[in-house]
Parts: sequence; structure tokens; C-alpha cells
Amino acid sequence: MKPVKIGLCGLGTVGSGTVNVLARNQRVINARAGCDIILAQVGARRDNPHCDMTSLNVTRDLMEVVNNPDIDIVVELIGGITYARELILAAIENGKHVVTANKALIAEHGNEIFAAANQKGVTVAFEAAVAGGIPIIKSIREGLAANRIEWLAGIINGTGNFILTEMRDKGREFADVLAEAQALGYAEADPTFDVEGIDAAHKLVILASMSFGIPLQFDKVFTEGISQIEPVDVVYAEELGYRIKHLGIARKVADGIELRVHPTLIPAKLQLANVDGVMNAIMVKGDAVGPTMYYGAGAGAEPTASAVIADIVDVARTLTANPEHRVPYLGFQQGSLSDRAILPIEDVQTAYYLRMSALDKPGVLSQVATILSDSGISIEALIQKEADDEEEIVPLILLTNRAQEKDLTAAISKIEALSSITGPITRIRLEPLK
Amino acid sequence: MKPVKIGLCGLGTVGSGTVNVLARNQRVINARAGCDIILAQVGARRDNPHCDMTSLNVTRDLMEVVNNPDIDIVVELIGGITYARELILAAIENGKHVVTANKALIAEHGNEIFAAANQKGVTVAFEAAVAGGIPIIKSIREGLAANRIEWLAGIINGTGNFILTEMRDKGREFADVLAEAQALGYAEADPTFDVEGIDAAHKLVILASMSFGIPLQFDKVFTEGISQIEPVDVVYAEELGYRIKHLGIARKVADGIELRVHPTLIPAKLQLANVDGVMNAIMVKGDAVGPTMYYGAGAGAEPTASAVIADIVDVARTLTANPEHRVPYLGFQQGSLSDRAILPIEDVQTAYYLRMSALDKPGVLSQVATILSDSGISIEALIQKEADDEEEIVPLILLTNRAQEKDLTAAISKIEALSSITGPITRIRLEPLK
Repeated sequence: MKPVKIGLCGLGTVGSGTVNVLARNQRVINARAGCDIILAQVGARRDNPHCDMTSLNVTRDLMEVVNNPDIDIVVELIGGITYARELILAAIENGKHVVTANKALIAEHGNEIFAAANQKGVTVAFEAAVAGGIPIIKSIREGLAANRIEWLAGIINGTGNFILTEMRDKGREFADVLAEAQALGYAEADPTFDVEGIDAAHKLVILASMSFGIPLQFDKVFTEGISQIEPVDVVYAEELGYRIKHLGIARKVADGIELRVHPTLIPAKLQLANVDGVMNAIMVKGDAVGPTMYYGAGAGAEPTASAVIADIVDVARTLTANPEHRVPYLGFQQGSLSDRAILPIEDVQTAYYLRMSALDKPGVLSQVATILSDSGISIEALIQKEADDEEEIVPLILLTNRAQEKDLTAAISKIEALSSITGPITRIRLEPLK
Repeated sequence: MKPVKIGLCGLGTVGSGTVNVLARNQRVINARAGCDIILAQVGARRDNPHCDMTSLNVTRDLMEVVNNPDIDIVVELIGGITYARELILAAIENGKHVVTANKALIAEHGNEIFAAANQKGVTVAFEAAVAGGIPIIKSIREGLAANRIEWLAGIINGTGNFILTEMRDKGREFADVLAEAQALGYAEADPTFDVEGIDAAHKLVILASMSFGIPLQFDKVFTEGISQIEPVDVVYAEELGYRIKHLGIARKVADGIELRVHPTLIPAKLQLANVDGVMNAIMVKGDAVGPTMYYGAGAGAEPTASAVIADIVDVARTLTANPEHRVPYLGFQQGSLSDRAILPIEDVQTAYYLRMSALDKPGVLSQVATILSDSGISIEALIQKEADDEEEIVPLILLTNRAQEKDLTAAISKIEALSSITGPITRIRLEPLK
């Protein structure tokens, strides 16, 4: 096969990682692809000292790459959604295949981009957009093609997982660990994307679309961050046999699809509960295969480059193939996507961990249990600590059975109105992931 | 695209699972494949009550399926290596694509089969041959295509892992758990394939070929079973922070490739150490991606069917494509395989767990340490238990640093010759998997 020419746009962390891995592993990559993969041009606004610039054909004008008639595949690694969208749409318009690591762009503008690419008969590949080097897109889209996916649950933000791991291992406070994560370069100066779950929501939307064959619907994801988690919740969760993880969860239920990112208690013995630090992992449950899990580095220069280059090899191999021979963008043929509704969080059913502060007097538990029971919610486990000598307030921790979010919210309001309960109730969702 | 017609040979556990999943998930499978996948004929020597025979076009003559001009893809699920080989070679000769779950056949005759398939320009897909429903073939061959794979280590035999899990959790003896596994139907009446590591060796050979781009070389695998593991070793391993798993390990080192199946101490905190019961998992370390892991059911009707059907979808999609657009059988283009040597076990370097029985008198440890030290082997950890009042024999447990197998074997002979050491020394290899 004739050589395939790559135009790479963006020479930040992932860009330089891609340049370096392409150079270092050239022989093995070409032997797999069945053709020479040539980095023909690099568009970068500035040089990057982490790669050997002298061997690169660099332009400062990224549109020059997109308009270069020699280029077969445009690799978009600039990030952001405005200029990256223009760049990719221009590349598609020019009949070029696209590889991107841009989760925000795919999550928010993927439908438009795929429609344009379909029109022009080109591929858009985005393995690097979710969970770095873990081949999770390929696994769901192709490896589990026989299955109706029932649910998936993933640790898909390394910063959040690092923070929760430190809180558990060392009993540290959220704000304290966040400051360290920022100092280590894991978290951005504005950590909102990571700790409020927006980054995870971008990735979840992509995984859910491929799993259930639905269009990308970023605006429908429920998102709750980890900034409200207190060390005491981590401790009580352990005591009850659970761990708190910040999960992206997508589930198909009778009346629609759940799409949610939130702190979640999961059984401590699960593989997923033992994914620590900045590592990522995704559990996927298919009706035929049962539960599966995929684990690895979710970010970083070379792990992400690994996914970018895997896409390049895939695209290179089918460059001149009839489009129908290629894997569809979301794993389902265009036109066969389902319009199944995304459920609002009020309609989601899950179990709950509740922590409240109660006056240390008889009858409080009975009042709480009655309110829950009247809402059809039963208590599955309970921790009631003795008060210290001087304290009149005791913590009361409950695990409930599976209930509808709106019923639980209503019950919480009633419990908070009790004179024997002081302050707001902490609510963390709980999933057995079975 | 026009419908793709499947001819399925073999209606045992996996065959009936495949029939059932194809029927149940027909809509979603076709939406992914972009064409109708039709089970046109089934070759089976007898009916299987686990699937609805009335809807099937059954023949008792399997060669009829292979010679049926309507059939595009022959799915071989009969197992065994003699007739299955004939069947597959005949199918290839007839220009049909092949999907198989037959690990023994691919491991022992894959080179011949791939050469024949290459000649005829057809695909042979075998995702189901390794680790059931886990898409490990696709992950290594395509998902990690950017990487030089450094090593992989897998729990790839569920029966063996079930036995070791029970021994650890309940302190049971090997023979006792094996009898239960046979009663539960996990292990065959002749359990040799499972517990002596032959089944794992078949799978390891396939994974190693794809990882390192080498031909399949089943006759070169070192294989050691788990029947010699005693409950006391499981206990000492835990005490030292390790777990014993029966692993298939493939590693690229400076002077060749290690291919070995044996009981292995691995750090207890590793994800892989916590893969319990009949579940499978494979760690793969790539130079770019770092460590990754893939977890799921390694056997069973529907998990294996999941992999068979994923292959069918892949093959269906590229049925009429130019062969160069397809993924090569072993992930590397024919003709680009390396002739890197497989190392004999004597030349393998690993760390070791040694358990010996010593007379309870001064100077024994010093004698043992001197022999090891003279062979360039150092002691990394040690357990020396006090003797019971009446006992004159004490157990002595050592962990060594990384050493060459032949040096360790020589040192063991010398230690066993000491008058202060009674009986043979138990040796279990140890890998940090870092």
C-alpha cells in the first residue's frame, strides 16, 4: 500500500507524545498498518521542547495543514471547541480523514461532525477522547458488538480519582488534596472541569452513544461534583463495606436512558473500587458477555498518543476502502440511531447513602424511618454512633434500598424539617454494579 | 450491503450460545454490522436442547456447510484439532471466511491456517479463542497498535483461578477444590488441560504472537501446573504481601522472548491479584500506554458467543473489501513477523519464593544464604517460624531477587544437599508486574 500522510495540528502534551511515539515505534507501527505512516506536516503555534523539532515540517498556520493536498489524515490535538470545530469541518470538507482526542468537541458537536463526515465519506476517529490509552471505544463499539449493553460505569477523570484516593488513604480534606493535585499538574488552575464532573460528562456521553446507539446529548447529562464529599463520608462508607468513587454511569432502563456523573458508593470488593490514583477504568455490562472491565492510564502524553496512533493505524488501513467497510462513527450505522429518551435525574432509580446529624434523644430514628417508609423507601443498613459525653448531636448514617430520586428528595425535605434533625442531610448515591 | 450468510459448525455450549445471542440481539447486531447477518445453516452431529432447533436449517454433515455455496462465513465451534483443521482448511479452500473459538487449533496450526487463508484472500478471526468475552485480541492487535508491547501476564484459565481462589479464601487443599470444580462442571473429567496449564499455554501463544509479531510457537512454551501448590504456600504468600495466581506470562527481553505458564506470586494490591473465581484478566504493558488490564468472563456459552459474534460483525463489514484493508491475522502484516528466539526456561530471569524445611538449630539460615549469595542471588524477604515445642523441623521461607533460572536451580540442588535441610524445596516464581 502507498504511504499514508499525516498532518498533525497541535503540539502540546498529546501532540508531542504522538510525535515521539510515532518516531520511536515507526517500524512496529508500519508493520501493523501495512503501509508507511509519514508525519508530513505539523501545525503548531509554538515549538515544544519535549520533541525533536528539527525533524518536523512545521507551519504556524494550522489551516495550511488542513488545506495541504498531500495530507490524508488530519490529527486534531489543539483542544477547545471553537477553532477545533472549524478545523475539523474544514478538513472533512477537503475530503480528509480526521483523528481527534477532543472529548468536549465530540460530546458537544459530534452529531454535526459525523453528519458532515458521512456526507464526504471520510472517517472521524476519537479513541483518545475517552480514558486516554485504554481502548474503550474500540472495545464497546467492536469488541462487544454482539451485546445489548445494559450499563456502564467508569472512573473517567484521573484528577477526581486521585483526590478521592488521597482522601481515603490519608484522611485528607478535599480542598487540601485539590491544592496538591494542582501543584502536581494533574488539575488545571480552574479545576471545575475535573472536580465538577464536566470532563467526565463529556466522556460519558460518548460512551453512552456507542453503547446504546443514541445521538450524543451532552446537555442531558446530570452532573454532580466531589467538592462536597467530606472525609467522614469516606470513613463511614468503608465501615459499611463501600468506597466512594466519582463515576460516570449510563444505564438503559425500561423507560429511557440514565446519564449521570456523581460521587457513588460502590462495594469495596469490586475491581472498580480498587482503581486508585490517577488511573482510569470502565466497567461495561453486556447481556451476553456479562460484566467486563478495562483499566489503564486515562491521561498523559504517551498513553493518549497510544490511542491517537491506534486510530491512525485503523484509518490508514481502510483509507481507500469503501466507506461501508469501515466501522461507523458511533458503532451503529448512520440512520439506525434510536431516539430513546434520556431520563431527568428525578426519574432515576438508585440506592442512597444518607448522613444526618440528630439530637441524641429517643425516637429520632423511628421518625426518620417512618418518613422513609411512607415514601416506599426502606433502610438496608445503619450506623448510629454513641454521643460523646459532652455532645448532644450524633451522626446517623443510613443506606436505603433502590428508590426514585424524586421520592428520596421529598423524604429528605421532610426529615430535614424534623426538630430532632440539625442541618442539611448529605446524600450520596449508591450502586451495587451487579 | 447485501445480507451475510453464516454457516455454523458445532452446536455444543458455545454453538448454542451463539445461536441464541444471534437470535435475541439480531436487531442491534445488524444495526452495528450494516447488513443482515443470517444464520443460513448449522452443522451439528446432534440437537442441543439449549436452543430452538425448529428455526435452524440443520445438517448432520459438517462438510455440507463448508461446501454450501450460499455460505460466506464458516463459524467453527466443534473444538479439537484434527477434524476442525480439515474443516477450516476446506472452508478456506472454498474461499470462505472463518471465525473460530478454537485456541488449541490456532496455537498449534495457526501458521498453516493463516498461510492458506492469506493465499485465498480470506479472513480467519479468533477473538473467542482467548479469554472468552474479553476483547483482548482486538485490544492488543488494534487498540495497542502504537506500542512496543513489553510484557503481558494473564489469568487465562478460569478453572485454575477458581481452585486458587478457593484455596486462599477457605484454606482448602488442591485436590479437594478440583473435585468440586469437576462436580460444578468447570473442570473436565481429565483436568490436565486446565490445571497443568496447557489450555493457558494455547492462549498465551496466541497473545504473544500478536504482541511481539512472532509466529505461533506452542512447542516452545514452558508449562508448570498448580497441582503442587499447598495451602501453606498460599498463607505464606499472603503474609509476605503476595497472592499466588496461575499466570501466562510473555515478555520481551534483550536476547529473546519468554513464554511461560506457571504459578506466580504477584503483589496482593495489584488489580490482577484480585481477580477471583472463574473470571479472567490480562495485564498488558506497552511502552507508550503503560500498564493496562482487561477483565471479564473467560468462558461460558454467552460470553464466548459475544466474542464469536464480534468477529462475525468485523468479518461481515469487510467481507467484500480488498484484503489489504483488513486487520492482519496476528496484527502484523504477513512477511513482517520476527524470528526472535523463545528463551528456554533455564535462561529466564525472575524472582522466586522458596519454602524449605530446616532442622531447628543455629547456622542453617547462614548456610542457605551463603549458597544463594555465591550464586549471585540475594534474599529480599524472609519468614522463619519458631518451632513448636515438640518439632525439630521449622519452615524457612525466602523471597529472592531476580535471578536466572539455571542459577537458582543449581543453588537449590546445593541447599537440598545440606544435612540441615530436609526434603525437597518448593519453588514458586515471583513477578512484581511493574
